[in-house]
Amino acid sequence: MSGERSKIGVVAPASRLPPEVATRVLALAERLYPGRTPEIVFHPQCFASHGHFAGDDEARAQAFVDVANDASFDAVWVARGGYGSCRVAESIVSRLKQPSWRKTYVGYSDAGMLLAALYRIGFTGVAHGPVAQDILRDGGDVAVARVLAWMIDRAPEALEPTVDGGKMTAAFNITVLSHLLGTPLEPRLDGHVLMLEEVSEAMYRIDRSLFHITSNPNIRRVSGIMLGRCSNITPNEPDFGMNEEEIAQYWCRRSGIPWLGRADIGHDSDNKIVPFGASYAGQT
Amino acid sequence: MSGERSKIGVVAPASRLPPEVATRVLALAERLYPGRTPEIVFHPQCFASHGHFAGDDEARAQAFVDVANDASFDAVWVARGGYGSCRVAESIVSRLKQPSWRKTYVGYSDAGMLLAALYRIGFTGVAHGPVAQDILRDGGDVAVARVLAWMIDRAPEALEPTVDGGKMTAAFNITVLSHLLGTPLEPRLDGHVLMLEEVSEAMYRIDRSLFHITSNPNIRRVSGIMLGRCSNITPNEPDFGMNEEEIAQYWCRRSGIPWLGRADIGHDSDNKIVPFGASYAGQT
Repeated sequence: MSGERSKIGVVAPASRLPPEVATRVLALAERLYPGRTPEIVFHPQCFASHGHFAGDDEARAQAFVDVANDASFDAVWVARGGYGSCRVAESIVSRLKQPSWRKTYVGYSDAGMLLAALYRIGFTGVAHGPVAQDILRDGGDVAVARVLAWMIDRAPEALEPTVDGGKMTAAFNITVLSHLLGTPLEPRLDGHVLMLEEVSEAMYRIDRSLFHITSNPNIRRVSGIMLGRCSNITPNEPDFGMNEEEIAQYWCRRSGIPWLGRADIGHDSDNKIVPFGASYAGQT
Repeated sequence: MSGERSKIGVVAPASRLPPEVATRVLALAERLYPGRTPEIVFHPQCFASHGHFAGDDEARAQAFVDVANDASFDAVWVARGGYGSCRVAESIVSRLKQPSWRKTYVGYSDAGMLLAALYRIGFTGVAHGPVAQDILRDGGDVAVARVLAWMIDRAPEALEPTVDGGKMTAAFNITVLSHLLGTPLEPRLDGHVLMLEEVSEAMYRIDRSLFHITSNPNIRRVSGIMLGRCSNITPNEPDFGMNEEEIAQYWCRRSGIPWLGRADIGHDSDNKIVPFGASYAGQT
């Protein structure tokens, strides 16, 4: 896409986006890309409200499909996490048409439900990376600049440092992956380096989720697990007695999955891009 | 067991039991069963401490196996929930010997991991019901009296009212069932009425867990779902827009699983006994 003006569609398959995010993202994009400012279109659905969600299930699914099936868009960027993608992922996947196949899709956290469903059906442009709402974080401009650099130029410096384009990779929030195993969203991860991160869970919940994930026969075919950051861990009463890295190593040992160390991902501004699969180099 | 003195062993495969629970349970048993007071043995492991747990994994597994494999015990009663059974369930199951096969096993919440593992290998005396620690609840004596009446006399009034001994039943905490699906603990629940309850989760988490459970192909072979009580629901920001019964009905509709109404189980003193399977009548 280098040299021409990218067109990025933002949709919110989970929770509602505060309007200020759009204003700030558009201003940042103008500053970062003078002369070739990407066209970033926030679908009006991002700002809709229906109970917990940014619009009801049908509105959220339709917005995603609108952008994914529109040949004029290069990328579908998830506005934010929260909760709700699992309710619409199957409906979205069933309605995707040819223009959707080679687009870039980026998000993380709750959006992992969609990344999984898209990767499962063979989409090659799926990546775990910052969402629009990350601009509200401390240092959030850097996170958004990183994901723009990925979506617009496939900038290699946006990548998680161990991603080399040769080995297959995938990344998920721990709780989200746990909740999609065994469902029609579950992708095949055989031979992948699986990177996992977590936010706002107690240590016993991280332990329980890693029991669930590493006990799954399909997951046991990954080539190894890397642990991203586990931030804002809620209190464990009494103290759990192990930290998140010790827990991950424990479950790797028990399950026979190779422990591959730490990954540079998490619910923060340093969250790097992890493409799903190994083919990202071919998409620049 | 009627007419003779029952012997019940209490073990804690998850969190540590406060010693006052033992004192109060023993006093209640004496009041309830003058002349044939059951012998209730609290394994010393119940009061051990290792980080989050009532002793390390090996100590917890060994205590359970000690009691289960001892022919002098009629029942293995789980001291309390908390967290930890998933770490020891496989180890326990691999060490069970003949005297364990026809015993009664009762617990709920975290202990669902063990109930599942025991039922999976064909144990017929498994039931979802109050734990010893429930004596600390308001009205907790009633809960403990109920589970004693079940363990000692198979008292039919202890049962969840829709349990008739003819249809197969099973009961789980929603989060616990979600986290054992796809693991070596998962039991076969084809044709069972599946009763589900929850505590201390936000509405969006209940929704996500029910997505996970009802999207599982094995679970879709249950004969129907009944919803127990969902208590101490933590705040959902913004308001979720559906209550727990509407959520359960929604996922039943989407998955094609029959919705069978409410079940009289939950994290409270009214928690009734739900035997796993349909054979309880044969065990009196």
